[in-house]
Amino acid sequence: MNDDKDLFFSRNEIQKMSKKFPTPFHIYDEKGIRQNARRLFRAFDWVKGFKNYFAVKACPNPYIMKLLKEEGCGADCSSLPELMLSERIGLPGSEIMFTSNDTPAAEFKKAFDLGAIINLDDITMIPFLEENAGIPELISFRYNPGPLRRTADVNVIGNPEESKYGLTREQLFQAYKTMKTKGSKRFGLHTMIVSNELNRNALLETANMLFDLISDLSAKLKIHFEFVNLGGGIGIPYRPEQKAVDLEALGRSIRSAYTEKIENRGLAPLKIFMENGRVMTGPFGYLVTKAIHEKHIYKEYIGVDACMANLMRPGMYKAYHHITVLGKEKEKKDHKYDIVGSLCENNDKFAIDRMLPKIEMGDFLAIHNAGAHGHAMGFNYNGKLRSAELLKRGDGTIEMIRRAETPQDYFTTLDFKGSAFKDMSS
Amino acid sequence: MNDDKDLFFSRNEIQKMSKKFPTPFHIYDEKGIRQNARRLFRAFDWVKGFKNYFAVKACPNPYIMKLLKEEGCGADCSSLPELMLSERIGLPGSEIMFTSNDTPAAEFKKAFDLGAIINLDDITMIPFLEENAGIPELISFRYNPGPLRRTADVNVIGNPEESKYGLTREQLFQAYKTMKTKGSKRFGLHTMIVSNELNRNALLETANMLFDLISDLSAKLKIHFEFVNLGGGIGIPYRPEQKAVDLEALGRSIRSAYTEKIENRGLAPLKIFMENGRVMTGPFGYLVTKAIHEKHIYKEYIGVDACMANLMRPGMYKAYHHITVLGKEKEKKDHKYDIVGSLCENNDKFAIDRMLPKIEMGDFLAIHNAGAHGHAMGFNYNGKLRSAELLKRGDGTIEMIRRAETPQDYFTTLDFKGSAFKDMSS
Repeated sequence: MNDDKDLFFSRNEIQKMSKKFPTPFHIYDEKGIRQNARRLFRAFDWVKGFKNYFAVKACPNPYIMKLLKEEGCGADCSSLPELMLSERIGLPGSEIMFTSNDTPAAEFKKAFDLGAIINLDDITMIPFLEENAGIPELISFRYNPGPLRRTADVNVIGNPEESKYGLTREQLFQAYKTMKTKGSKRFGLHTMIVSNELNRNALLETANMLFDLISDLSAKLKIHFEFVNLGGGIGIPYRPEQKAVDLEALGRSIRSAYTEKIENRGLAPLKIFMENGRVMTGPFGYLVTKAIHEKHIYKEYIGVDACMANLMRPGMYKAYHHITVLGKEKEKKDHKYDIVGSLCENNDKFAIDRMLPKIEMGDFLAIHNAGAHGHAMGFNYNGKLRSAELLKRGDGTIEMIRRAETPQDYFTTLDFKGSAFKDMSS
Repeated sequence: MNDDKDLFFSRNEIQKMSKKFPTPFHIYDEKGIRQNARRLFRAFDWVKGFKNYFAVKACPNPYIMKLLKEEGCGADCSSLPELMLSERIGLPGSEIMFTSNDTPAAEFKKAFDLGAIINLDDITMIPFLEENAGIPELISFRYNPGPLRRTADVNVIGNPEESKYGLTREQLFQAYKTMKTKGSKRFGLHTMIVSNELNRNALLETANMLFDLISDLSAKLKIHFEFVNLGGGIGIPYRPEQKAVDLEALGRSIRSAYTEKIENRGLAPLKIFMENGRVMTGPFGYLVTKAIHEKHIYKEYIGVDACMANLMRPGMYKAYHHITVLGKEKEKKDHKYDIVGSLCENNDKFAIDRMLPKIEMGDFLAIHNAGAHGHAMGFNYNGKLRSAELLKRGDGTIEMIRRAETPQDYFTTLDFKGSAFKDMSS
């Protein structure tokens, strides 16, 4: 198996690039992102109005969001800055989904003013929204099935019963009734209970659950649902032995359920929305870093110029990210290394006991699947600075779409003219 | 037991403060920080030249670093921005310890130019330092005991054998010899193998280990050690039932070891350095947040206006942080809550199943022990912004020592005039 098949750059290209853009950097592939978005939309082209609201938190870069917008994606937001980014790239309100929890008043106000679709997380949010923003014509609620959804093969985001999100089934009936009384006329339903899920059945099960619930809610409350938001959660194969979700097959299986539970029950038209983030950009982004130190103690270490500030998943979740030593794709993987960053925490390791070709100083390492929840999760712990983001355009040109942080950025919230500095000469 | 004994503010004070400085914010206590630093220095006043190099990563705020400097502390740095902060508060090189791993050339250069004490993490760093900065007169190495230190009761930072830090015992002999040949004349030795350790014996054991090692190195290499850096790692009682380390007793027990292994062997004078961060500021900082939502689904939730961006330890490590509902210190803790933030991750919970007094909307919650590895570890995931830092001065006045981030800060590395925006009207 060729686990380096998706690389859209060679060692030589990176070598050349690094003269202009020093490592480490994240690099994304426009072509890959566009083709993948088209695959997703094609898989659901049987339902009118299908839309993926890209989960901005996965890759909150407006250049990437703009590409996805051009491919038909909206934006799934849960904070003021994410709403502002969506506005800046020119998304109309109808293409912004505001799915937030424990929401501050100002964020509801902004979402309301933008005309975003507001997806409420709790029944207590109804009076809060009304008081701080108003009652929108279109309203959605997030469902938390709690103990009603507890199957062994579902990679839930924790157990739904332990999850802070959403309304109970009983609350949903009350919530839509209240919103109808208050003047809302258009309705949506949402849930999000799987994350990084590679099992198509788990995703299908969520669709089945929501279709049935819409059927019950519609019958009881005499309301028509305009959309169902199946959530995101389509996983990506981080490990070489894993397989990507077959989007076409997923679309087909959800279509059968839709025919049976929506069309045959007279509940169509019902738009299907999703809010995938990871699968939209994850595989099309790499963290590129350079080997700068080797260390031989109780284990063999390669120190690179990236650290946890650029990619937290291995350190935070012990997540596997595949690594290619550029230019050595065909060499034997006969060396066992820990690949480490410079952060002063022992979990700052991109890989532990990883078999790789012999690494020399100056070699470039491409860390795979860094296009989602990569740069976005970076922190500045230990004074570490977040790296730049580059985009390989469809025509092969490289564009810097976010500059690297500088120490000045790191100091920006500090006042060096304040009391602590009054007695100092310079 | 009164677990709220250390609070240095009342509900009324916070209420008043919050009009000027909106929640959430971190607040630190000058008096507590100073008194505690004095306790530590007193515990080691029997050895000439004792110094604690404050681990900057715990609380990289120059106003706090300045207080500690006034109490005699230096700074323990491991990145360029941390070195720059130390320089900005006017620390001379001898009061800056540069303990870094996988170090970029530019950082060695800066440390060397500042005259900081350079503490090398690996034997391969010798030629790297020489090439990129030079050979300093004073040099230190970090020891990793590996399999030689593996006792059950020691809360090591992982197992030393699995840790990326330091040199082996054999390498140390070679390393000092090489540095002597290259012209270094003054020597130090360092290790750091425990973290957040409440057991005095583990800290003593490290001192014993290093004293013996200095004895062996001195005899074999005919060099005199000027200092030993015992590392940091003194823990703090995060849980109400835990007890703080008795610093005086720790000082006494290390003194006995020093007499036996250093003085009696003719190795004195040997300065003792430490690099504590957590114990210096942790207990003297609180994250203050306001209850803004309550939610009743399968569990009872209180949503606050802080989130994981302000304090990662509960979400990242499932760490316990004590919480006081201000003004209700004496009320019965008869409600079980999850205290959650608004980040769109289910681990954004400050407490799970915590027994607290009944919380009403608008109540202020003080999250304890947030003075170290609190603000410093904050990320901007999900577009969440990091909060302000306040300092309660010895005279009772409140000073803002770091402003809160704004969306503009969050966007600062983005170019909204670049290609993605060329076709947009505004």
